[in-house]
Amino acid sequence: MGRTLVYPRVQKNTVHRKDDRATYDLHTIHSIINETPVLLISFNSSDPEDPFPTILPMIGTMGSFAYPSADLNDPLECYLHGYVSSGCMKQARAHPESGLAITIAATKVDGIVLSLTPNSHSYNYRSAVLFGYGSLVEDAEEKLWAMQLVTNSVLPGRWDHTRTPPDKAEMASTTILKVKIVNGSGKIRTGGPGDEKKDTEREDLLQRVWTGVVPMWETAGEPVAGGDGRVEDVPEHVRAFRDDTNKVNEKYAKTAAVEKT
Amino acid sequence: MGRTLVYPRVQKNTVHRKDDRATYDLHTIHSIINETPVLLISFNSSDPEDPFPTILPMIGTMGSFAYPSADLNDPLECYLHGYVSSGCMKQARAHPESGLAITIAATKVDGIVLSLTPNSHSYNYRSAVLFGYGSLVEDAEEKLWAMQLVTNSVLPGRWDHTRTPPDKAEMASTTILKVKIVNGSGKIRTGGPGDEKKDTEREDLLQRVWTGVVPMWETAGEPVAGGDGRVEDVPEHVRAFRDDTNKVNEKYAKTAAVEKT
Repeated sequence: MGRTLVYPRVQKNTVHRKDDRATYDLHTIHSIINETPVLLISFNSSDPEDPFPTILPMIGTMGSFAYPSADLNDPLECYLHGYVSSGCMKQARAHPESGLAITIAATKVDGIVLSLTPNSHSYNYRSAVLFGYGSLVEDAEEKLWAMQLVTNSVLPGRWDHTRTPPDKAEMASTTILKVKIVNGSGKIRTGGPGDEKKDTEREDLLQRVWTGVVPMWETAGEPVAGGDGRVEDVPEHVRAFRDDTNKVNEKYAKTAAVEKT
Repeated sequence: MGRTLVYPRVQKNTVHRKDDRATYDLHTIHSIINETPVLLISFNSSDPEDPFPTILPMIGTMGSFAYPSADLNDPLECYLHGYVSSGCMKQARAHPESGLAITIAATKVDGIVLSLTPNSHSYNYRSAVLFGYGSLVEDAEEKLWAMQLVTNSVLPGRWDHTRTPPDKAEMASTTILKVKIVNGSGKIRTGGPGDEKKDTEREDLLQRVWTGVVPMWETAGEPVAGGDGRVEDVPEHVRAFRDDTNKVNEKYAKTAAVEKT
């Protein structure tokens, strides 16, 4: 058994409501981030008059260029690649020293929890939030490493099955944002419905209202060939991704429906 | 055919990158919000020294108490109910006049787009962002209406199949945040992979790299009885939700894999 690192509990990241569902465990939080296909990142507008934080969907994954063998239990950076508006990149460039303050969120729905009364309805879910400072990766070696990391986070092994490495023009046009994490927290709900005594004592309700969980999970369907490639058979790395994803997601949701962890 | 309303294009909500995927259409944006089980909302910390926007997962839906028959093409408010930290509620209360500036985001992944080279990889997805001012619903009639609206947005018809109305204690402890929307935008990607000429002209690549789409969708599994209710058979409103969800989600993802809309 290795170390179990946790993010420090400060006012900013402490879960106040239903805090028995909270986690500060690095491994758990990093896993939720890595298992979520699209992250949402939030940061403040460069216009001090604009009160609305910007939110962008982005592809990202946890990793450590300095310690590539680091695992999910270790302190890691978050590497983001995706729909970075030029505005976001301009802002990251405008903070070369400190980086741009960014909040990263990932949420997975694992089931709908149906109880006796609307107020006790809930979702089974996994949610993670990270706070950190983002800056553009300028080092060519780290950038290439991060591009490979992110590509393989979308579909394991994909990098080696495509035309790589990126050419000069692609390296120049691609931006990778590296977020140094300063804190984070997670929240997880599992298990069946729970109701209050005032309702569970009412025989008429118990006889009338169905209670339970509808498990929910992200399914990968049969791959559909398209685009320019002429390979007919779906390759092993794509098939394995589909099978693994479905097996893991379905099992998690079905287990969460009946077991409180 | 009715009106087709759009959110005004201003600097804040204009999509700059891949703007052929952008939409400002109310119906489309409101649909993405309503079809996403858990929304992420973002707002600034009350501490001016804290640079990180807060992000919270919340349950919410679009609606109009003033015009209950309004449809998704009409101007609507967003009603939020869920893991509102006390901090969020305190902040909303601290802005009784203007409301708390909130950004609301919803993202659905519809497929993984696998192309010849990592840079042209993508997701099929639907993403919506709304900007608005949130305040607590104080009017008892509107609050009850919103609680019913939100419950039925989780699972159609659920309100009537549970113990309602909420009692005095539940009404007092429940908070509903109503966000008056001032602007919004959406972004949608559909279709198969697209690569650049420099790669599609290389016969060796076309023969080596499989290209296509892995459709992805949220699946509802077989409902699992649990909790205190004693009804054995899964009721029709739960069964119908499951069947409809799976049919709609699977069809959308599979169509998006092959058709550019």
